[in-house]
Amino acid sequence: MNLTHLDEQNKPKMVDVSDKDETIRVATASGIIEVGQEAFEAVINNSTKKGPVLQTAVISAIQATKQTSTLIPMCHPLMLTSVKTDIEELHERRAFKLTVTAKLKGRTGVEMEALTGVSVGLLTIYDMLKAIDKGMIIKDIQLENKSGGESGDFRR
Amino acid sequence: MNLTHLDEQNKPKMVDVSDKDETIRVATASGIIEVGQEAFEAVINNSTKKGPVLQTAVISAIQATKQTSTLIPMCHPLMLTSVKTDIEELHERRAFKLTVTAKLKGRTGVEMEALTGVSVGLLTIYDMLKAIDKGMIIKDIQLENKSGGESGDFRR
Amino acid sequence: MNLTHLDEQNKPKMVDVSDKDETIRVATASGIIEVGQEAFEAVINNSTKKGPVLQTAVISAIQATKQTSTLIPMCHPLMLTSVKTDIEELHERRAFKLTVTAKLKGRTGVEMEALTGVSVGLLTIYDMLKAIDKGMIIKDIQLENKSGGESGDFRR
Amino acid sequence: MNLTHLDEQNKPKMVDVSDKDETIRVATASGIIEVGQEAFEAVINNSTKKGPVLQTAVISAIQATKQTSTLIPMCHPLMLTSVKTDIEELHERRAFKLTVTAKLKGRTGVEMEALTGVSVGLLTIYDMLKAIDKGMIIKDIQLENKSGGESGDFRR
Amino acid sequence: MNLTHLDEQNKPKMVDVSDKDETIRVATASGIIEVGQEAFEAVINNSTKKGPVLQTAVISAIQATKQTSTLIPMCHPLMLTSVKTDIEELHERRAFKLTVTAKLKGRTGVEMEALTGVSVGLLTIYDMLKAIDKGMIIKDIQLENKSGGESGDFRR
Amino acid sequence: MNLTHLDEQNKPKMVDVSDKDETIRVATASGIIEVGQEAFEAVINNSTKKGPVLQTAVISAIQATKQTSTLIPMCHPLMLTSVKTDIEELHERRAFKLTVTAKLKGRTGVEMEALTGVSVGLLTIYDMLKAIDKGMIIKDIQLENKSGGESGDFRR
Repeated sequence: MNLTHLDEQNKPKMVDVSDKDETIRVATASGIIEVGQEAFEAVINNSTKKGPVLQTAVISAIQATKQTSTLIPMCHPLMLTSVKTDIEELHERRAFKLTVTAKLKGRTGVEMEALTGVSVGLLTIYDMLKAIDKGMIIKDIQLENKSGGESGDFRR
Repeated sequence: MNLTHLDEQNKPKMVDVSDKDETIRVATASGIIEVGQEAFEAVINNSTKKGPVLQTAVISAIQATKQTSTLIPMCHPLMLTSVKTDIEELHERRAFKLTVTAKLKGRTGVEMEALTGVSVGLLTIYDMLKAIDKGMIIKDIQLENKSGGESGDFRR
Repeated sequence: MNLTHLDEQNKPKMVDVSDKDETIRVATASGIIEVGQEAFEAVINNSTKKGPVLQTAVISAIQATKQTSTLIPMCHPLMLTSVKTDIEELHERRAFKLTVTAKLKGRTGVEMEALTGVSVGLLTIYDMLKAIDKGMIIKDIQLENKSGGESGDFRR
Repeated sequence: MNLTHLDEQNKPKMVDVSDKDETIRVATASGIIEVGQEAFEAVINNSTKKGPVLQTAVISAIQATKQTSTLIPMCHPLMLTSVKTDIEELHERRAFKLTVTAKLKGRTGVEMEALTGVSVGLLTIYDMLKAIDKGMIIKDIQLENKSGGESGDFRR
Repeated sequence: MNLTHLDEQNKPKMVDVSDKDETIRVATASGIIEVGQEAFEAVINNSTKKGPVLQTAVISAIQATKQTSTLIPMCHPLMLTSVKTDIEELHERRAFKLTVTAKLKGRTGVEMEALTGVSVGLLTIYDMLKAIDKGMIIKDIQLENKSGGESGDFRR
Repeated sequence: MNLTHLDEQNKPKMVDVSDKDETIRVATASGIIEVGQEAFEAVINNSTKKGPVLQTAVISAIQATKQTSTLIPMCHPLMLTSVKTDIEELHERRAFKLTVTAKLKGRTGVEMEALTGVSVGLLTIYDMLKAIDKGMIIKDIQLENKSGGESGDFRR
């Protein structure tokens, strides 16, 4: 049981990664927003509107990955070398699933960057659709996989 | 079916709220992070560590509410006049529930601010505990209630 | 000849607008990017790619209006109540013209917000197309019109 | 003894100022940096260099006042309507004294904005001179006066 | 015709540069603001005012280079290792020409940083002079040269 | 006498560190806030409140280190690899002493990061206590030691 972000006096600290190797590190996270039938159809059935709504979400997700160390107090500033996204339409759940993959060559992992991108991208979908439905729910924001660090790879 | 954030050419726009009245607007959002037994106990059973972990989450949540218009592309910049939080320990689910209430006297609602605060606060808990458990899941980020705007009150 | 942003010792200052009335203030600015034939056609002739390129520019323009007081040292922080954009394809010049209209109910004008939105939106088009053409030129960033302030309306 | 920034569970909160009146609020803060003889003379005796060094400090001070609510976790976002600065050369102490006056028409005071401006302006002087002297000391950052709020005026 | 910033589904992405070599990369960009006779003379003929106006522009240009990845959605975060500027007075055109040179040792080029610095620096000159002339025009923001990347050097 | 941050025309510049070696660089800075008897006791004598007040200060200090290049105009953007803090209670002076140690593997030193963290952390203590005492004074912000750069080590 290792709360690595607390020092010996239980104050938060930014963990020392100075001596870690620079390696390629990749993390993928995903999450879902259930939007209800009316909002789902407003996007799905309207090819001229679907693009702008989902592109706005993707762009905000990518931009948010770059703000991770500003938002999450103990995160290291990082120089991401790649961010990719994927959006799936989940017709049965009337939901969108957003996946973000972040990558860098550096000294610490990028799972917080991927998770932050997913969270903000889903919030943006909420914002774009909230005039139709305020009851939408964001669910299952989770790390899908992670590789490249000393602590070993993770695969859900 | 009203995608208010798209203009007549389906480009995103920041909705015009210039003529709305300045009223007191309040929104409360909540969300949950399920952290697994080991991580839950690392926080719960350790009174000297629980404070710092959860305080860091609360502080990041409040700070994130102030970054909402930077993160969510079509959100208006707002001058929040109050942000309060609550953290509940959900022992059966081995989870933490974070609630954020945002308030302002202004021309547009603050549900995105409350939702953004919740999202970032939960991400911060993830960050503080990720050395113990990478499989944690963030769930059920949702608007609880909202009052003060023209579109009427919302209560889940 | 009135350099209002310098104090009596010629140091920069943020001008005092405390006593000005809160009025509706609107400003429209525009600018052009000449992109060359190959880059123009890569966007124009490809309906599945044109949307994403130009939407990214529009979103960055709107977000940049909200960063104006961070970027321009003596600008007041403002609460924009509306931002709208327009993109025209100038086929003869092989150029795109971006127009941004900003609005607020407040104590000072929003021309810098409109001009900043135009500048960043055009830079984003440059970024999206620079793998094709590095010789693109951004031109004619200018205020089109402005209304609502004490100094009178402006119309180019 | 009133720690207004803690809630009933001793978690930080952003104090509720929703019901306060919008009044003109002004705060002036000051601080000093003692720079040593060599660094002091490098600035003072060189009229072509003194301007740029001190102007950079003034500009950073004004910009920092606008970042206060980002930097200080429980500060409200505010729309400053005026920021002015003053720099005095304290020849006997081989020091510079920076004074910042912030003003707004709003619901809460601006002492943190004035103090943040002073702090960052002095750090900028340190940065500009640190190649000459790393032993410089920043001192006596303090509120000079404050007016316009319910808690009454303050004058040191 | 290569829109490298779009993925196979035509969604924006941050291009993967993980495998590129860290090399010294330099880019220089320039741009012009035509300010009219009255505004030009207010700056040029007044040695005590010229410094502060142009220094403010230079400082904002340097600071803006550091915000490039925040402003331009698909730009990588970078660690600039040098930023230099030049301002020329173009008496015949009653204009100022701002040049910005950015440099880093890294995996991707810095032309967007140089162009962003130029754009914001010119906007700052506009802001400093707009009380005299609202008709000023920003022109010819362009890359002058670029070296150090795989795509080869560029010289206008 | 070397004002390294000014170019040959006495304009500010970001110093070129492109050719410096990447080495481990560490800097420690400290500062004091004298808070008066009532405010000191409100924190010290109340174990349930002391944590939240001082934790908020520590968190803001760590976050501020990451904003240094945004706040201080000529600072390079850096990727800090460690930030640690210490808070001492100075009972005789009724003061708190905040120490911040920043570290990175990079091409330039981190003394500005440590000093900025100290300054913002102390401002946060001021903010948390200002309802009790507006006369608090921030003092003696200074570099304690620095190692790892070409200019040699510094020890106060």
